[in-house]
Amino acid sequence: MSRCIAILNGGGDCPGLNGVIRAVVRAAVLQRGWRVLGIEDGFDGLVEGPRCRELDIRAVRGILPRGGTILGTSNRGNPFRYPLTDSDGNISLCDVSQRVVDNFHRLGADALVAVGGDGTLKIARRLSHLGMPMVGVPKTIDNDLRETDVTFGYNTAVGIVTEALDRLQTTAESHHRVMVVEVMGRDAGWIALESGIAGSAEVILLPEIPFDLDLVCEHIMRRRQAGSRFSIVVVAEGAFPRGGGKVVQATAEQTHGLERLGGIGHFVAGEIERRKGLETRVVVLGHTQRGGTPSPFDRILASRFGVQAVELIEKHEYGTMVALRGRNVVSIPIEHAVNGQNLVDPAGNLAWTAEQLGIHLGR
Amino acid sequence: MSRCIAILNGGGDCPGLNGVIRAVVRAAVLQRGWRVLGIEDGFDGLVEGPRCRELDIRAVRGILPRGGTILGTSNRGNPFRYPLTDSDGNISLCDVSQRVVDNFHRLGADALVAVGGDGTLKIARRLSHLGMPMVGVPKTIDNDLRETDVTFGYNTAVGIVTEALDRLQTTAESHHRVMVVEVMGRDAGWIALESGIAGSAEVILLPEIPFDLDLVCEHIMRRRQAGSRFSIVVVAEGAFPRGGGKVVQATAEQTHGLERLGGIGHFVAGEIERRKGLETRVVVLGHTQRGGTPSPFDRILASRFGVQAVELIEKHEYGTMVALRGRNVVSIPIEHAVNGQNLVDPAGNLAWTAEQLGIHLGR
Amino acid sequence: MSRCIAILNGGGDCPGLNGVIRAVVRAAVLQRGWRVLGIEDGFDGLVEGPRCRELDIRAVRGILPRGGTILGTSNRGNPFRYPLTDSDGNISLCDVSQRVVDNFHRLGADALVAVGGDGTLKIARRLSHLGMPMVGVPKTIDNDLRETDVTFGYNTAVGIVTEALDRLQTTAESHHRVMVVEVMGRDAGWIALESGIAGSAEVILLPEIPFDLDLVCEHIMRRRQAGSRFSIVVVAEGAFPRGGGKVVQATAEQTHGLERLGGIGHFVAGEIERRKGLETRVVVLGHTQRGGTPSPFDRILASRFGVQAVELIEKHEYGTMVALRGRNVVSIPIEHAVNGQNLVDPAGNLAWTAEQLGIHLGR
Amino acid sequence: MSRCIAILNGGGDCPGLNGVIRAVVRAAVLQRGWRVLGIEDGFDGLVEGPRCRELDIRAVRGILPRGGTILGTSNRGNPFRYPLTDSDGNISLCDVSQRVVDNFHRLGADALVAVGGDGTLKIARRLSHLGMPMVGVPKTIDNDLRETDVTFGYNTAVGIVTEALDRLQTTAESHHRVMVVEVMGRDAGWIALESGIAGSAEVILLPEIPFDLDLVCEHIMRRRQAGSRFSIVVVAEGAFPRGGGKVVQATAEQTHGLERLGGIGHFVAGEIERRKGLETRVVVLGHTQRGGTPSPFDRILASRFGVQAVELIEKHEYGTMVALRGRNVVSIPIEHAVNGQNLVDPAGNLAWTAEQLGIHLGR
Repeated sequence: MSRCIAILNGGGDCPGLNGVIRAVVRAAVLQRGWRVLGIEDGFDGLVEGPRCRELDIRAVRGILPRGGTILGTSNRGNPFRYPLTDSDGNISLCDVSQRVVDNFHRLGADALVAVGGDGTLKIARRLSHLGMPMVGVPKTIDNDLRETDVTFGYNTAVGIVTEALDRLQTTAESHHRVMVVEVMGRDAGWIALESGIAGSAEVILLPEIPFDLDLVCEHIMRRRQAGSRFSIVVVAEGAFPRGGGKVVQATAEQTHGLERLGGIGHFVAGEIERRKGLETRVVVLGHTQRGGTPSPFDRILASRFGVQAVELIEKHEYGTMVALRGRNVVSIPIEHAVNGQNLVDPAGNLAWTAEQLGIHLGR
Repeated sequence: MSRCIAILNGGGDCPGLNGVIRAVVRAAVLQRGWRVLGIEDGFDGLVEGPRCRELDIRAVRGILPRGGTILGTSNRGNPFRYPLTDSDGNISLCDVSQRVVDNFHRLGADALVAVGGDGTLKIARRLSHLGMPMVGVPKTIDNDLRETDVTFGYNTAVGIVTEALDRLQTTAESHHRVMVVEVMGRDAGWIALESGIAGSAEVILLPEIPFDLDLVCEHIMRRRQAGSRFSIVVVAEGAFPRGGGKVVQATAEQTHGLERLGGIGHFVAGEIERRKGLETRVVVLGHTQRGGTPSPFDRILASRFGVQAVELIEKHEYGTMVALRGRNVVSIPIEHAVNGQNLVDPAGNLAWTAEQLGIHLGR
Repeated sequence: MSRCIAILNGGGDCPGLNGVIRAVVRAAVLQRGWRVLGIEDGFDGLVEGPRCRELDIRAVRGILPRGGTILGTSNRGNPFRYPLTDSDGNISLCDVSQRVVDNFHRLGADALVAVGGDGTLKIARRLSHLGMPMVGVPKTIDNDLRETDVTFGYNTAVGIVTEALDRLQTTAESHHRVMVVEVMGRDAGWIALESGIAGSAEVILLPEIPFDLDLVCEHIMRRRQAGSRFSIVVVAEGAFPRGGGKVVQATAEQTHGLERLGGIGHFVAGEIERRKGLETRVVVLGHTQRGGTPSPFDRILASRFGVQAVELIEKHEYGTMVALRGRNVVSIPIEHAVNGQNLVDPAGNLAWTAEQLGIHLGR
Repeated sequence: MSRCIAILNGGGDCPGLNGVIRAVVRAAVLQRGWRVLGIEDGFDGLVEGPRCRELDIRAVRGILPRGGTILGTSNRGNPFRYPLTDSDGNISLCDVSQRVVDNFHRLGADALVAVGGDGTLKIARRLSHLGMPMVGVPKTIDNDLRETDVTFGYNTAVGIVTEALDRLQTTAESHHRVMVVEVMGRDAGWIALESGIAGSAEVILLPEIPFDLDLVCEHIMRRRQAGSRFSIVVVAEGAFPRGGGKVVQATAEQTHGLERLGGIGHFVAGEIERRKGLETRVVVLGHTQRGGTPSPFDRILASRFGVQAVELIEKHEYGTMVALRGRNVVSIPIEHAVNGQNLVDPAGNLAWTAEQLGIHLGR
């Protein structure tokens, strides 16, 4: 029986989103003769309008290697707390979930594929409870989702940061400087840790391990005395100095000020310069980390996830989420997806590997 | 207690070998104060000489992003069937394994890390039976080893092929041609399959699925009729046409002749041209696939394997091999490593994913 | 006064074509309020139809980094010798240039920008003589056009080949082999020569210097004796062995046979193997060399050419072609563009540079 | 007659330095049988010691694709104003040029190749006046040297920035933000201008064109109203706001404060945010721009310069500098090299091209 699938992206963009969309369309249209509707700008497109367009084979041609998403992502986002403006011009957060349900039915779609991170999957879970036939596809560039070994986007981001570290290696030597590289990762330090290992960093600072700048400075000075002429320090944007009581207070204030100064990277660089008189330079890779063409790994994973989502719809297995476990793509209850974050284990194998390689983790 | 580790590479080179060497050195020298000896040119360096050099921290500086191996790999290779020339100039294959054991002991090393593929691991197993304290590190660019989810080198190779396919996509459209790309994979078609999916190929031919050229040609003609102006066909070097009885015989002869014509890629292209009158072009990526800087994924995996190998030596867990399982690096008996090959399952999830995406697998 | 420009691409595709189209549109539409019509599939689109579409700012958004061309290029091409089928089904080459002129006027366009190589520019010259207001933009991936220091596409191609050679360098060493890499260049050996220098080749064979395989083999053997374990030989597809009288005859036949064997690369490899018993491997980069994202150099040059073409139209300077001279974009009579080819001078500075670096040029 | 050449690098590092060193060694040793001495750490290595090492063919093997320099560059640098510490621990700047001359002669070298930028070439000129047989090779990543069309390093830097801009393009769209990218260029805005054109920036701010933030903000708002959801602003590190009298004064102070805030990029972003309430993000590419493997263009140019330097020595043409003019490598009196800087001409063809493409230059 012919069916109709709707698909949307939620949250920040991420290399691989187009791969999911393309795979859903090809598996649904080519293999099953179904229709696919692309919702524009995430849940916003279901609250308003609905705004969507038909996605045929031609619409997804050539998009696998492209970053971003042809559908756009949420601007305001959460239909359970959606910002609406009343007649007096005041904005209040309203539950418009029923409007989403109604609009979805008005589209005539049989199922909705929601591609997104923690926030989007939580919304998908609640909409599922309201009776909507949902299938989730996990997305997070930070690799902070549980229940899937990894998702697309993360591999690409690690590649971009590693490439930047490679470049710094060849130049740093002749400059006798400390290079501080600030990378993504508010809660989870995976990008910093993996790219730091791959890019031969000397120091990696993670949100999961509050750092001690005295130890970091000592490590850098020891390297100098051992004849090394430069150091590369990778700092996750969510990393923060260790401290208790008043120090935390002070740090919080500092942080506020420092955000305006360009973030934790500048803070760390400034402190190393202040304490040890070493010349430092800061690199802030920012959004370059979430752009560009997805790596083959991410394209394949995104394609597998998209195809699997269609398979789940065919089997009426709603309320589920696709996930990678070892070499297999599996489906799990969407309930499980959003229980806590996947953080770097300070006592785990990867952190241990880093320290075995002689990398200092700020502790 | 201070110890001494020897390390060697066997078989073809592969991006990530230097990462293993570096990780072994850093984990052994920096963290434990041990010594590391690098054996040159694989087992050859233990048969002759021994030829080796001390690897200190300086010796492995800057090698993580470099392809190839600073140690060289085996030329003649197998100490159980080693080619020796007698006084009359005749070459015969001799068992020189005792010489390897003796030379190893003469080095004063406590353990030997053997990094290699199927062949090297089998040798390591036999040497282990002779009482040598062995730890294996699996290596295969083709991803054809069992017992580890994946090894280093493969991810880089898929990246290189995908990049080539990306380039062909943009140019193929204006040329109305069939582009045939021959890639590595004698027994296992993983590189062809994964890079074909990532690079949006229309047809992928694998050693695991004997192909039917009539079906392939039909698929290409259907695409033409549907308005597509070009087709990209990825062929693993070990792919071969389906056939039985006499046809197989004929094929074997054909294959022999065709190897001299440039391999299976030229055969497939020639047949498509002959049968359908379509203009074809052949790309043979050859050894570019095993060269160049390892991907971050491969660098991290190589580093984890190297560090884990040192850990196994510290615990005297000899006769073992490191392996990746899901997110974890584990150790397994080296016996298990070499039981059969990891081939693409024609009925498995990845082949199914490809077909769901509309890719033709020649069947 | 508002005007209307038509633009078309002729000949093979080339990275940078989209950059010219985009620059023409932005300079014409944004800066002057003109209209731009994109002719589809080169001169074919003017012979038939005319087939064209309006190009506004949105139509060229995001195309600068994309290879290929959004307009397609000529299939049959030359309106002065255009293949037409009569009622009996016979194909004959006819002069349909008047139809091109008529169709062009029917479009209501004031000028035609023809982007292409030698063939396209010759057609542009003849159409110019028929009174059509033409501006030419030179395009050649082989760098074989005179009158412009270089055009877009070539820099990208050199980059792709060099990257492949880099990869071979790291892997070749452990394989003790001769790697033969066949690259583009039927008449002009620029790609082979420049990428060979950049990629540290040991031997480079060009169409401009008929090669002596004995000398090549000697050079390779000398390297071996000096301790070098491998050699990389770059061969332009148009390179051919030196010979006179009967030998040339034989060679011509050989060549014909060899084309079916996979081209000159396989011939050279086979000969080295046959004469010296060295193991060889062949890499045929083929169309990967003209695909993919244009290099920044090519994007900038394409953009400058496109903008300059619009400027020439504004000034009614028809019958001209844009060109790069040193740091400047200039305009020259289209007559001058097509006088002979830009070939590598065997006695020139670049060939001399290669030989000074110890590279063997087959002579 | 056998000769001996010394070579040193001065100033900051730059992709291509190793290419010059390699070319000098190969042209001198392989072709002429001369010797080459590599001076370590620039002029420092001639003041102290001398510190140098023999460079044979093996020493330069494999270095062409590597960034940085195997020789190191100057730390303190100028022998005419060299920081020396007296017995009381006071540092004073002394003329130690005679020591350089003496040390050079003690090496037994016949000529000195000095590879460097403006500063290094000025020193080379003065040493030339003292009778030292000097040949200069120009180096500048910023492209700010006159008398050569371009030097190596610059092309690589433009490539790195363009790649970052490409990545931002795909991600920026879904984030509705203004992305500010700070790039190298204290005095000359070439990197900002060329990479901005190649990377489809909307605004480019250069040291040569003091910018008016009101105009920049207006341009960004106009784009928004025209439906564009994001803007990319490229800022050279030496760009500064337009102003007169007191304003300049204030700006100078601001600049000082802002440097501590992370440079001009953060200033521009902060101002756009403050004035228009737009969300902004800053990317600071820093030293990633001068690292990594040199582009083929830079490798070839570096090789040509190195070979030409040896040729000049063979002809005893001292006091000269190599340079690129159009397609030719020429030699010019070193006197001419250091007359003023090569800056972007605000009225020139490239700035005009940018504006024709609709890029705003802040004026």
